[in-house]
Amino acid sequence: MLRQLLPRCGRALRAPAIRPSQLSLAVQVPRWYSIKPEAASAAKPLGLDPSKLSITKTTSPKTPKDPATLVFGREFTDHMLTMEWTKTDGWLAPTIQPYQNLSLDPATCVFHYAFECFEGMKAYKDKNGNIRLFRPDKNMERFNKSAARIALPTFDPAALIELIAKFTKLEERFIPNERGYSLYLRPTLIGTQKTLGVNPPGSALLYVIASPVGPYYPTGFKAVSLEATDYAVRAWPGGVGDKKLGANYAPCIVPQMEAASRGFQQNLWLFGPEEYVTEVGTMNLFVAMKDKETGQKELITAPLDGTILEGVTRDSILSLAREKLAPDGWKISERKLTMRDLYEASLDGRMIEVFGAGTAAVVSPVRKISWKGKPVDCGLNDNEESGEIALRMKNWIEARQYGDEEHEWSYVC
Amino acid sequence: MLRQLLPRCGRALRAPAIRPSQLSLAVQVPRWYSIKPEAASAAKPLGLDPSKLSITKTTSPKTPKDPATLVFGREFTDHMLTMEWTKTDGWLAPTIQPYQNLSLDPATCVFHYAFECFEGMKAYKDKNGNIRLFRPDKNMERFNKSAARIALPTFDPAALIELIAKFTKLEERFIPNERGYSLYLRPTLIGTQKTLGVNPPGSALLYVIASPVGPYYPTGFKAVSLEATDYAVRAWPGGVGDKKLGANYAPCIVPQMEAASRGFQQNLWLFGPEEYVTEVGTMNLFVAMKDKETGQKELITAPLDGTILEGVTRDSILSLAREKLAPDGWKISERKLTMRDLYEASLDGRMIEVFGAGTAAVVSPVRKISWKGKPVDCGLNDNEESGEIALRMKNWIEARQYGDEEHEWSYVC
Repeated sequence: MLRQLLPRCGRALRAPAIRPSQLSLAVQVPRWYSIKPEAASAAKPLGLDPSKLSITKTTSPKTPKDPATLVFGREFTDHMLTMEWTKTDGWLAPTIQPYQNLSLDPATCVFHYAFECFEGMKAYKDKNGNIRLFRPDKNMERFNKSAARIALPTFDPAALIELIAKFTKLEERFIPNERGYSLYLRPTLIGTQKTLGVNPPGSALLYVIASPVGPYYPTGFKAVSLEATDYAVRAWPGGVGDKKLGANYAPCIVPQMEAASRGFQQNLWLFGPEEYVTEVGTMNLFVAMKDKETGQKELITAPLDGTILEGVTRDSILSLAREKLAPDGWKISERKLTMRDLYEASLDGRMIEVFGAGTAAVVSPVRKISWKGKPVDCGLNDNEESGEIALRMKNWIEARQYGDEEHEWSYVC
Repeated sequence: MLRQLLPRCGRALRAPAIRPSQLSLAVQVPRWYSIKPEAASAAKPLGLDPSKLSITKTTSPKTPKDPATLVFGREFTDHMLTMEWTKTDGWLAPTIQPYQNLSLDPATCVFHYAFECFEGMKAYKDKNGNIRLFRPDKNMERFNKSAARIALPTFDPAALIELIAKFTKLEERFIPNERGYSLYLRPTLIGTQKTLGVNPPGSALLYVIASPVGPYYPTGFKAVSLEATDYAVRAWPGGVGDKKLGANYAPCIVPQMEAASRGFQQNLWLFGPEEYVTEVGTMNLFVAMKDKETGQKELITAPLDGTILEGVTRDSILSLAREKLAPDGWKISERKLTMRDLYEASLDGRMIEVFGAGTAAVVSPVRKISWKGKPVDCGLNDNEESGEIALRMKNWIEARQYGDEEHEWSYVC
């Protein structure tokens, strides 16, 4: 019911330069759903300069917790990396300073209009004690796409990777030495303009905080059961479901809680009257099944049609599958798949396995999916907690994350 | 940007009791798109008690600005109304305290997952000096629906209205005496849990800030031109477009900027291959046209199908139209209308007028709409800035807002 029009509000709106050449973010969708977020990027990625970094160390360093007691995203390191942006001056000098509260005017636009996007990535300690990031270029690429889509400033990806690497090394003592442990990094970008007009923010704050985390499955895989959500929709063509915006998360909680109330660990998002399977909770979904006609094994995930988060783990799994499974006769597909397809494959005995994929768990095997009250069996035996593909994927990816296998995906800080 | 204030949030997360009996918020949509946000309401609206209000007045009161210089949402009053909620204790005692920054941990969930919703409402000074709110019950009802949809706590509407009334009276000297001026009130509810797990927040902060505002059209109506947005979609059935969530706003900026870059004051959101007209910028849309067959005058706005914000001004206009226009032979319709319908009505000379409706402007007349590059004329003569219906609606509503006409919609503080 807030109804202010642009011309009266806050900062005067300046028409951005539109580049007709920069049209196609969405390649698999018709023109009707294309958008040009670059048009909104209020400034070129000016001035993010790692050489200007200043560091103020804490005077009260914490003692890292016993790794066995870590809970995801609850404990943080001593410091935070921060950099401010203003429309007039671009990016100001970055700082590393003691972890501390943000002090923000209650009218700040991040509280009202969800000018916020983030990334999730991890730093690993390898067997030689080096600190490694995993494909940080992919996170930075997505972070910039998310920022541009909500009129927040973009930045030079290499500059931010360099800053994150410095920050991570500074916090090295919080990364446990053991396999399975890592430092979860949370780059966050928020709009900080303190006026209520619904306008592109004239100022922003990018910060990175870090939380030591343990293995997702401390005692080995534990397959989850999902409830297919047919009463709410996470994302739609022409929307922002492919961006890592805060806006995509709060609305997912109620369906998650509903699923939990009926005994399911996660919900599975369907789309459209066809009931396409899209994502599971906050992970991408992979299905391994045999083709109905030919019996060929196929690993399938939903295509990037604008409704699917462009997961780094998703991309890594597809790449590894093309490298290591395709030579064994697997077909690797980014294509739409309906809940009915899953149901029929399960009935026919063609289902091999199903798993979620994301930064937190790498892979998360699925035992069954409840669909309109019917359980759809996902191929695991009763005594199994993971299928073979999920397990192999986890091992292949971790080998690159922890530097056991030297690979261009691993970035040594 | 980093300082300390209001320093106490964050509690352990506990799974809430789910009540499967509380099912149906959405009445006009099929089961496929129904959702049960009440299921997520982490607690009953416990303990919001106006009698517990404590007031700490500022020691440095501001001098209200010259009303002629006011810009929407940029100047705020001396104080803010705040109340904290925790999962264990419910609503804590409300306070009015000096307007001040919020101090929040950088891991606070409002920064990451858009746990935020808000309302927009106004307080008016009547000719006897009384302070009046306009239909605050409607705002509170929607505020609670928004909160429940993203697992934030709900509250007793009467209690919050009482608190807002007290707060507004305290800030009375900021409400200019002249017609057209008012005090814009911004109730805001944010999740304050300071952990990164994607979970229902275990703590929240509700606050109300107030900004004196001038008339939307200081020198009389000024009709706007719109660009029909066919490359991005604001809302979807089963989504959250009918709730006043921060999540619905940031993604709207780029299309607004694109429209502005081509000389249009606002964008008009279309939906689906049929190109239904839904909302204009951040307002509801009304179309007055003559029926193709019968010539009957019809005032049309999109139905509340889950994709349309349930505007208080929208509801007031529908109510007034049924009361004052229907007796003159008008048909009043909440129904779907396509861009082609508008185009044809315009070509046939059946278009009477088009206007947006919202709290800021009350009504905002539309001159033309650009649709696939074609201008669709909306019925105004070149020398007119408003049609008759928009003007009458504005006057009817303002008469009730300012108490010229005593009506149950007006709440005297």
